[in-house]
Amino acid sequence: MNELLEKAERLKTAAHTLAMLSTEEKNAALEQIAQAIDRERAVILAANENDMAAGRAQGLSPALLDRLQLTNERIDQIIGGVRQVASLPDPVGEIVAEWTRPNGLRIQTVRVPLGVIGMVYEARPNVTVDAASLCLKTGNAVLLRGSSSALHSNKALVAVMKEALRTTAIPETAIELLEDTSRETAQRMFRLNDYLDVLIPRGGAGLIRSVVENATVPVLETGVGNCHIFIDESAERSMAVDIVVNAKLQRPSVCNAVETVLIHEQWPHAGELLEALHARGVELRGDRRLAAMHPFVNEATEEDWHTEYLAPILAVKLVADVDEAIEHIRRYGTKHSEAIITENEAHVRRFFQAVDAAVLYHNASTRFTDGEQFGYGAEIGISTQKLHARGPMGLVAITTTKSLVYGTGQIRTV
Amino acid sequence: MNELLEKAERLKTAAHTLAMLSTEEKNAALEQIAQAIDRERAVILAANENDMAAGRAQGLSPALLDRLQLTNERIDQIIGGVRQVASLPDPVGEIVAEWTRPNGLRIQTVRVPLGVIGMVYEARPNVTVDAASLCLKTGNAVLLRGSSSALHSNKALVAVMKEALRTTAIPETAIELLEDTSRETAQRMFRLNDYLDVLIPRGGAGLIRSVVENATVPVLETGVGNCHIFIDESAERSMAVDIVVNAKLQRPSVCNAVETVLIHEQWPHAGELLEALHARGVELRGDRRLAAMHPFVNEATEEDWHTEYLAPILAVKLVADVDEAIEHIRRYGTKHSEAIITENEAHVRRFFQAVDAAVLYHNASTRFTDGEQFGYGAEIGISTQKLHARGPMGLVAITTTKSLVYGTGQIRTV
Repeated sequence: MNELLEKAERLKTAAHTLAMLSTEEKNAALEQIAQAIDRERAVILAANENDMAAGRAQGLSPALLDRLQLTNERIDQIIGGVRQVASLPDPVGEIVAEWTRPNGLRIQTVRVPLGVIGMVYEARPNVTVDAASLCLKTGNAVLLRGSSSALHSNKALVAVMKEALRTTAIPETAIELLEDTSRETAQRMFRLNDYLDVLIPRGGAGLIRSVVENATVPVLETGVGNCHIFIDESAERSMAVDIVVNAKLQRPSVCNAVETVLIHEQWPHAGELLEALHARGVELRGDRRLAAMHPFVNEATEEDWHTEYLAPILAVKLVADVDEAIEHIRRYGTKHSEAIITENEAHVRRFFQAVDAAVLYHNASTRFTDGEQFGYGAEIGISTQKLHARGPMGLVAITTTKSLVYGTGQIRTV
Repeated sequence: MNELLEKAERLKTAAHTLAMLSTEEKNAALEQIAQAIDRERAVILAANENDMAAGRAQGLSPALLDRLQLTNERIDQIIGGVRQVASLPDPVGEIVAEWTRPNGLRIQTVRVPLGVIGMVYEARPNVTVDAASLCLKTGNAVLLRGSSSALHSNKALVAVMKEALRTTAIPETAIELLEDTSRETAQRMFRLNDYLDVLIPRGGAGLIRSVVENATVPVLETGVGNCHIFIDESAERSMAVDIVVNAKLQRPSVCNAVETVLIHEQWPHAGELLEALHARGVELRGDRRLAAMHPFVNEATEEDWHTEYLAPILAVKLVADVDEAIEHIRRYGTKHSEAIITENEAHVRRFFQAVDAAVLYHNASTRFTDGEQFGYGAEIGISTQKLHARGPMGLVAITTTKSLVYGTGQIRTV
């Protein structure tokens, strides 16, 4: 019952210390964490085997068991991830803006940690270390709330990280795992505004919805991507085929994969495109005209236009022009990533102005909506909200600013 | 029952049009609004008199009636406000960042409207026009939810604004007033994530808390300011007195007024400061030592350190050093505005690094935490949250960004 409050209190105190540390001190601590995980592989793998055994006994699906499993190779990846975060530039301390007012007040806006971050996630134990290293790098303390199925693994990983921190400038209380994984305690955590500065849910749509609907603590929301590609009349054939194949098949299970392709009815290569997709095993669901023209295209239902398949299934539709494409995207899109393939610059401008989404593409795959691909180094997630951060979120997304005002005795007269 | 959804739907459609408009089109529409309010004074004042009569009959307090009342002079101020917003630079369209990736993708992050803003406010009818003009200037549609006590005034103002928009590029459906002011409908509005991009509560602490606790739509939170001034050992006497008197008395009812002064126990001028405050009618509540030393200082209770008086009352406390001051502020502060008066640069650095607040001051009054004083022109409010915007919020705070990616056929291979 009091685990939550006790840990939250410790984190809040630790956050004060963390905010004062230099980049070198934080990086040195991350290196200690990397080394400790390397050294304690046996302990971590044994704890994970406990979770795996319990998971098998409970009949978890093979997909879920796969996410839960740690291996030596996955531990190598985790260690590599920690070192990569250590190598990134530290956003904290950056002077974001600086100006002087007519009364002589000099105002400096500087980047600082958010404070205490609540991370809510599902079965993958690698998120435990990934989230902790991103938070510590940016001077944030972190409350980790993983799933009960990964509790042994998470406890082992957090114990190893805490042990590693003992010889560093970061207090070990900067990372706390919520071992009580009950729904009630999670709900209390989501409303712990006096202690948590932000909640970051990482996982499926259900998890994210639950956090958004129940939280009073501000949420950094990541979410569904029902992404579209519009192929305009002037689109180059091979470019269009390559981009659609890439956006659908390079990794179908992720949020920046394409789910619906809108094809200008005058584009002469629709048949070739659909055949290319069909030949690669994509299940096609089309509007009435496309279904009538191509035996391997099934007729789509209204539901299809709304669906984020996350699978090798693609909805396809003929549209009269760029405006009909825009209308369709406004109606069914989730404001994640939307692309236009065209040689018509006026249509690019219109599409870019009229479509409201985190990322818009001209002649490129939607798969680039990603922190690494944007050049941010690490990725916290892809924000589908409009406040604070939109699109791929790097380290800057888990910082805030404060304004420092330097005076010489100024008082306000109006 | 369906008023909320119908208006939300209209606003969403209007937002698409608004996002495409030029700065000139938006400014011209604001000028039409200013002129229409000027022209329709009699109608507006008559509607306001309805609210005033009902308010008097219901026994509203004089303070509340004063907030509710419109006069010719207040209408002048409203019109002036609209024209001032029109004259400000338009943040929409600004290119925030632009870079090229090794694969040739050119990424541009541009500033765009948020979409539809839900404004929740109390009795002052001037907020109706103020909020509408800020939203329209930044290309946002706005759902206005004022209080029932101002309903006639708000209806008249919105009708005049809508009428004015008919001859402009902004659709009149870009401003909608929620006439159903029931609590139930407000609660539904706070959870209208499919239509509203953000909620902005403007009013007292109770209103803000109700929005934060019940909303699933993201909130731009403004809030309480329990602000401190720490007077260090080396503080100049007259500077310290001037700043404290200004921060407490220049306008005691606002969130950036000082509520507690922490005095270094070796500062030689504490007595003079307290006498100066007492002479100006400030009620002083001090720790045991100060209360024992000065007959006009009453002993403070624990409650006093927590209280945002918003009145000519001040809590005062002796502290041993800058670290005790920092500790006190961490415990009782609300992360709004905190000041240090000192000639010791090392203490400034320590205070600025250790205190977590939106705005920190060295040798200046806390009263400068304000959009106009920061040079932002208009002010949406003062954010006490850490996400999205912190401290004074100008027009930029009601915008977001989107990333435009220009390719030449790039696909993702890893």
